[in-house]
Amino acid sequence: MTKFIPPISRLIDEFARLPGVGKKSAQRLAFHIINMDQTQAVNFAEAILDVKRKVKYCEKCFNITDQNLCDICSDPGRNQELMCIVESARDLIAIENTKEFHGYYHVLHGSISPMEGIGPNDIKIKELLVRLQNDETKEIIIATNPTIEGEATAMYISKLLKGTGITVSRLAHGIPVGGDLEYADEITLAKAIEGRRII
Amino acid sequence: MTKFIPPISRLIDEFARLPGVGKKSAQRLAFHIINMDQTQAVNFAEAILDVKRKVKYCEKCFNITDQNLCDICSDPGRNQELMCIVESARDLIAIENTKEFHGYYHVLHGSISPMEGIGPNDIKIKELLVRLQNDETKEIIIATNPTIEGEATAMYISKLLKGTGITVSRLAHGIPVGGDLEYADEITLAKAIEGRRII
Repeated sequence: MTKFIPPISRLIDEFARLPGVGKKSAQRLAFHIINMDQTQAVNFAEAILDVKRKVKYCEKCFNITDQNLCDICSDPGRNQELMCIVESARDLIAIENTKEFHGYYHVLHGSISPMEGIGPNDIKIKELLVRLQNDETKEIIIATNPTIEGEATAMYISKLLKGTGITVSRLAHGIPVGGDLEYADEITLAKAIEGRRII
Repeated sequence: MTKFIPPISRLIDEFARLPGVGKKSAQRLAFHIINMDQTQAVNFAEAILDVKRKVKYCEKCFNITDQNLCDICSDPGRNQELMCIVESARDLIAIENTKEFHGYYHVLHGSISPMEGIGPNDIKIKELLVRLQNDETKEIIIATNPTIEGEATAMYISKLLKGTGITVSRLAHGIPVGGDLEYADEITLAKAIEGRRII
């Protein structure tokens, strides 16, 4: 294996820890930093520290924010009766980008995964229940991921909400728009048939 | 477009400036930093600053090092009469990894590219000539990249060295080992035929 001098191998290791960055890419990125001018490198390091200093979780929905309440929770124009539950702040952004949802959110910060030792108490479910006691939510869309963990989390939450009078729904499964039937997996295809709509 | 709060969009921009990192990957990386614990993020930022503080160019060959002379230049066991000229420190590492070359290096830090306004004076060619006046180099392998710029740089240097008595060679072109003839481009294939070896 190539031996790098300590400051370089340290930086390569740091890059290699990032998701989707392999050893080779980590080397390329580290050398890019070495060839950057001083100001650019300082700006980059500062941006990392700054995000850790300023970004925190919204007190209400646990979205990321630099205030006490996130932009969405502090917007009175949203539909108070509608809530969307997501696993992560990135999922929230994906839904916001559709411009189709105008209610509030609740970010779980994970999903229930017995395999990884993540139980209901490790994600923001308790906080969800506390929150629901004091607000006007009438309908909840559970938009956890279509994975085993996401489905388990959705089932768990929907059971907890039984008897509260809140309507609970799940995102529709089906063929992605622009997708090709031929390449759809059987489970997705089965769900698409099951969820077929009259036109 | 998605609007992020300032510290996040700043970090996304910084990541997006790295080579091979698109807007989507930059978002994923930024969110990874947000979810890191404080110590990890500080370590990452420190590794970036540290590499800029400690890494400099070798006084002799312009390889990267944290000393005045790099590990290779300060190794007396190397073949003093052999030099390999490369465009970048990463190319040097690639050649070192073959364990086939035991001479010294000279890192140009670029290649001549009139299109990008990079002339002979913008890379370490002057330094090469000064160096050659005082050392024992008898053979030089020019291992610039097989690109138009790399070839032009190789031609330029070989012309400068005409009459010095130094043997100048270029890396062989040919089919990559494990490659498939079918997928080789015509120029590589032509060079492979031209450079054929008796077995």
